[in-house]
Amino acid sequence: MNGADALMRALADGGITLCLTNPGTTEIHLVAALAQEPRIRTVLGLFEGVCSGAADGFGRMTGRPAATLLHLGPGLANAMANLHNARRAGTPIVNLIGDHPVAHRRNDPPLASDIATLAAPVSGWVREAASAADLPVQGVAAMKAALGLPGQVATLIVPADCAWSEAAPIQVGPIQSAAQVLPEADLAEAVRMLRAGVPTGILLGGPALLEPGLRAAARIAQKSGAVILSNTFAARFVRGAGLPLVRRLPYFPERAQKRLAEFGQLIVVNAALPTSFFAYPNRALDVLASGCRVHTLAGPGQDGAQCLAALAEALGVSQAPPDSVRAQRPDPPGGSALTAESLGAVIGALLPENAIVSDESGTSGEFAFRATLGAPAHDWLCLTGGSIGQGVPVATGAALACPQRKVLCLQGDGGAMYTLQALWTQARERLDVTTVIFSNRKYQILQVELMRLGFSAPAAKIIDTMDLGRPDLDWVKLAEGLGVPAVAADTVDGFRAALSRALAEPGPHLVVARL
Amino acid sequence: MNGADALMRALADGGITLCLTNPGTTEIHLVAALAQEPRIRTVLGLFEGVCSGAADGFGRMTGRPAATLLHLGPGLANAMANLHNARRAGTPIVNLIGDHPVAHRRNDPPLASDIATLAAPVSGWVREAASAADLPVQGVAAMKAALGLPGQVATLIVPADCAWSEAAPIQVGPIQSAAQVLPEADLAEAVRMLRAGVPTGILLGGPALLEPGLRAAARIAQKSGAVILSNTFAARFVRGAGLPLVRRLPYFPERAQKRLAEFGQLIVVNAALPTSFFAYPNRALDVLASGCRVHTLAGPGQDGAQCLAALAEALGVSQAPPDSVRAQRPDPPGGSALTAESLGAVIGALLPENAIVSDESGTSGEFAFRATLGAPAHDWLCLTGGSIGQGVPVATGAALACPQRKVLCLQGDGGAMYTLQALWTQARERLDVTTVIFSNRKYQILQVELMRLGFSAPAAKIIDTMDLGRPDLDWVKLAEGLGVPAVAADTVDGFRAALSRALAEPGPHLVVARL
Repeated sequence: MNGADALMRALADGGITLCLTNPGTTEIHLVAALAQEPRIRTVLGLFEGVCSGAADGFGRMTGRPAATLLHLGPGLANAMANLHNARRAGTPIVNLIGDHPVAHRRNDPPLASDIATLAAPVSGWVREAASAADLPVQGVAAMKAALGLPGQVATLIVPADCAWSEAAPIQVGPIQSAAQVLPEADLAEAVRMLRAGVPTGILLGGPALLEPGLRAAARIAQKSGAVILSNTFAARFVRGAGLPLVRRLPYFPERAQKRLAEFGQLIVVNAALPTSFFAYPNRALDVLASGCRVHTLAGPGQDGAQCLAALAEALGVSQAPPDSVRAQRPDPPGGSALTAESLGAVIGALLPENAIVSDESGTSGEFAFRATLGAPAHDWLCLTGGSIGQGVPVATGAALACPQRKVLCLQGDGGAMYTLQALWTQARERLDVTTVIFSNRKYQILQVELMRLGFSAPAAKIIDTMDLGRPDLDWVKLAEGLGVPAVAADTVDGFRAALSRALAEPGPHLVVARL
Repeated sequence: MNGADALMRALADGGITLCLTNPGTTEIHLVAALAQEPRIRTVLGLFEGVCSGAADGFGRMTGRPAATLLHLGPGLANAMANLHNARRAGTPIVNLIGDHPVAHRRNDPPLASDIATLAAPVSGWVREAASAADLPVQGVAAMKAALGLPGQVATLIVPADCAWSEAAPIQVGPIQSAAQVLPEADLAEAVRMLRAGVPTGILLGGPALLEPGLRAAARIAQKSGAVILSNTFAARFVRGAGLPLVRRLPYFPERAQKRLAEFGQLIVVNAALPTSFFAYPNRALDVLASGCRVHTLAGPGQDGAQCLAALAEALGVSQAPPDSVRAQRPDPPGGSALTAESLGAVIGALLPENAIVSDESGTSGEFAFRATLGAPAHDWLCLTGGSIGQGVPVATGAALACPQRKVLCLQGDGGAMYTLQALWTQARERLDVTTVIFSNRKYQILQVELMRLGFSAPAAKIIDTMDLGRPDLDWVKLAEGLGVPAVAADTVDGFRAALSRALAEPGPHLVVARL
């Protein structure tokens, strides 16, 4: 047994079941060890951003880390944009990077670079194995670090000689998420606030948005009249008919400011404080009014759901049936023009029960989010870090995590181009994902921001850098080139028919909605 | 005039003529400034790796930096693999990264990350503008840093408020490459070595491989019996009929060892010492015999061509007509089977005069390199840093640099998938690039390395991670989906006809060679 074998056995013992990889020569012994470990499914991505995004999707849906296996610094660099999104989502990932043996780095071969420095900005934990014997030990440490509260990217650098040299297996039991952190929450303060008769928002984020936290928050809200809020881009919304209503803050800061101005106090659970996505000249940076009283009931490292349960208990409502959203599908849209609004209505009408939605639809998707409010219960995964190219990979990982569920990917065409290679992995693994490309042939959000910044009659040369036309992308050909059947729709009826068929038939499909 | 305007004016005054971008909201004022600066051509890439790779290709062909303009940490991360290759190539690039205003970073908005740390491993110079007034000053400093010896990636971080705040223009003249560095070369030692009657290699790298250095080296070699060598992957070979012969070291270390064992001494000019690309268990790490006497005539920071000219002078051969390669095209290949060898022969037969070849053909391209030895003079650009996904972007940048020349991209299918978005930029800018996809439907180099590592009967699960089949990629559809006309060939005749047509007709084309 070599170090690679000992590592993969330890990771499997600890509970890793999936490894997403694009390996190179420095990872060959690790790949060989994966081949001998039947408990870990190994999935190839044709670009590393597919691997990291899929690991993010898997982690969001299971709460468990997938492993990635990447080729030195450049492999890590290619994975990094989606690791950035995963970091913002608090997703556990065990990020394995093959490297040259330390002795060979002295020769500064072409692929050498400073991997530890590269990894730091996206990782909560970075280490390098010191020997073959140390490799499985560090693998376990990486799993434990990944499963902290909040989850994080744990990067383990594996010099090739640590993988190929002899090692003994180590004893490992299943590794669980960090032991329940006892809330240091100031319940009394929260109770006082909720009884003060001041309009109150309960801002949920991260794990507090999953069902237990959400239902506890709904009981509290129902009793106190508080409103459940979230930031715009949550890692995972559990939503739909029968689930409590969460009002997410608008994207544009002036609208978020207006929304937040309704509340004199804010109770924060596992969420970052609301902030503007971007800064603008001559505008205040803060979206939260300075007079708003903020009480952090649970920080990101605390068990927010447990804090909410304790708060519900303190308010005497721990058994109350919380308010929930009524089942309601939108009416079939009239007219034939395919707009963001009519498209959203069709999605609201057709979203399958228990679906998972991976949403990187940008400017076009807001209507779909609203139109699915009363659809059957489902999960909705957002672009957490703002780095486009997340949607299709996260959908891929969600499908690997939940093979019995339908995955719907709502994807703008600009972001789709970043990591379109993920479609091939969906085809190879026969994943049940339907991708809708919102094809508006531009980076529309940029054109909106351009107006907001005061460029009311922008030069053609500016518009050109925000335009995907000339030539138009042919998404049917691109999808088919990657092995995914595809169809384009220009009308509401055409889109509805295409989406129905795609959702009805197992396996990957792509529907281009030409707006 | 704001900081962005002052920056772009200063860069244009300094001699920047091209900016490759995929901008976001934090770069809008910089894009607007570009629109007002007619001396800088602005080209959109649909993924940042296209931008950085194209900047590399432009810099290799012109010796001048292009600018990139990228969106915060994730945009930089996406560009990084090709910046790694550019770093290894010694290419000058002015790498502009938009960021949030410093005041907004305090809010830790979703897109924030530690950009300076991320940039360090690929940059020779990293700074952040401190104010709008400082922005053009730092832009000039970045250009000067990029144009050092060797060329390097100079990263300038631009907080958005530095771009949008008022600033005054600064006075800038054309910025040239670092003043000719006077050689500190030990000429006398080189002369002694060349007269010692010991077999001698002259190892050229970087700028010493361009025509002036090469011709001086050829005069020296002819006089002394020395042999001109290079490392396997040079940034740019100037080669073909009428140019001196350079023998490049083989890729596999045991073959390089054998080759180098022929020489008792090595004179090094602007080159890194030969090293194995990867390390292997139970094999020596060094390819250079310990008994070989090494004399560095010019390090990477010295003017190697000037050193070689001085050495030729010292040997009294500065006016001698150097040996050069005779014009010779390969015979048309017999048989109809499309193999790496027959494919190479067709390329050797058809390569246009004064072509630029961007080579990321991996295992399939060695034959083409040999078969073009006596083709009309041309440039050959290699994968310098081993990070795949360079070929198509570098071809794109070379075509932007040299619109009057034919560009031929020899590209393996594995690497092509990394940055296929570059084809769209070729279509949009109507660049005269013909891309040949060597379609063997696998990461063949990995399967070779697997055997070399002793996995003689590898498990299917291992092979699966090195295989691009199931489903096969349809490169004709992928290219057409990106706006580039494409055709596939399975036979020698079919390939020859397709390549002839593609080279004859201006604009981008893609030919799939199904091996």
